[in-house]
Amino acid sequence: MKKVAVLLSGNGVYDGAEIHESVLTLLALDQNQIAYQCIAPNIAQHHVIDHTTGNEMDESRNVLVEAARIARGDIKSTNEINISDYTALVMPGGFGAAKNLSKWAFSGPEGAIEESTKKLILEAVSAKLPIVAMCMSPVVIAKALKGSSFEAKLTVGSTKAKSPYEIEAISQGMQKIGAEAVMKTVNEVLIDENLNIITTPCYMMEASISEINQGIQEAIKALKKLI
Amino acid sequence: MKKVAVLLSGNGVYDGAEIHESVLTLLALDQNQIAYQCIAPNIAQHHVIDHTTGNEMDESRNVLVEAARIARGDIKSTNEINISDYTALVMPGGFGAAKNLSKWAFSGPEGAIEESTKKLILEAVSAKLPIVAMCMSPVVIAKALKGSSFEAKLTVGSTKAKSPYEIEAISQGMQKIGAEAVMKTVNEVLIDENLNIITTPCYMMEASISEINQGIQEAIKALKKLI
Repeated sequence: MKKVAVLLSGNGVYDGAEIHESVLTLLALDQNQIAYQCIAPNIAQHHVIDHTTGNEMDESRNVLVEAARIARGDIKSTNEINISDYTALVMPGGFGAAKNLSKWAFSGPEGAIEESTKKLILEAVSAKLPIVAMCMSPVVIAKALKGSSFEAKLTVGSTKAKSPYEIEAISQGMQKIGAEAVMKTVNEVLIDENLNIITTPCYMMEASISEINQGIQEAIKALKKLI
Repeated sequence: MKKVAVLLSGNGVYDGAEIHESVLTLLALDQNQIAYQCIAPNIAQHHVIDHTTGNEMDESRNVLVEAARIARGDIKSTNEINISDYTALVMPGGFGAAKNLSKWAFSGPEGAIEESTKKLILEAVSAKLPIVAMCMSPVVIAKALKGSSFEAKLTVGSTKAKSPYEIEAISQGMQKIGAEAVMKTVNEVLIDENLNIITTPCYMMEASISEINQGIQEAIKALKKLI
């Protein structure tokens, strides 16, 4: 049976994959009888953040090695897989999307995108494979599709509810490189029916863990209908 | 409103807190309207394991700093809290219980126990505060109560279903230092009604993430009745 690929960008909200979003994604997939394979790029993290202080630490870590902690060791490098062997691509969020998979956190829509990630996303969209992107990870899709003929409808949150982040600026950034940004809040899901892309804001909004779980459950239910 | 203290032993199954168990504990607490505070000892990890290979890495990490990743930064040191300010103590599992909170992984029941952890558990049991312990963390309770007048009923799993670990040997080790070991499997919960201690095996058994979620949900439901 073909699996869904879950793309992790490290292990920790401030320099990698958001851990709650990642684990609740695996839970929702398993509860829906969807088998999964965790994947991550075999690259150095942009930096390492002390999550007790927010300060940078004087050390280096590898995205694949750290993401393996969430995957309990069962993980593959993005370079060693072919997305056509999978039924869908699921991307939890966290700053890793904007620091490791792309450099959006430092250069906005002009920032670079990690090459193996760009390849995965472009191949998935070209083959109409469903993609689920949570939290900040829709910006990585926008970056991957920049300059292509694909115009994706994506959400990173809503200005109509509380958020710790600049939803308006990030949305405008995505529009600037060819995506259509739509406002959705934590328990909502946006479905681009043309490109089979499902997005939900999770912790881009001020939210509890059970609220982000609702968004993830809705997103995975929508994914199940597509695969 | 008083909170439940969630004791984390790092961030990753092979050298710290089991990440799925930790996150699903926070989810179950929030879904049951039980407020929580993550805590961890401010000590060096026993070692750092590369979760892609199982090999030790040549670096050092701090248990509190790593656990902060699961807590999204909101965490306190075990030394700066008083357990009587909380309504219960909840301990997810992972090798961190047997490598950082105790040295069970290296010396079995004769291994040392981390001092701030021992103090927390002894004070909680003396005050009849409810305790939930998952996976490998019941051995830490057995160690904390060794030599006391408290005889706890605890489970680390069952020999009647598949487990990657030596359930029989660990159970005998707990008995050797004064606990009563009971066999329970992944979706079951053991309640010591005398000491208010709830234990469930989670990943001590061969299990999927939705199976361990069931055990955690049952354990937190049992906790809710006690607080």
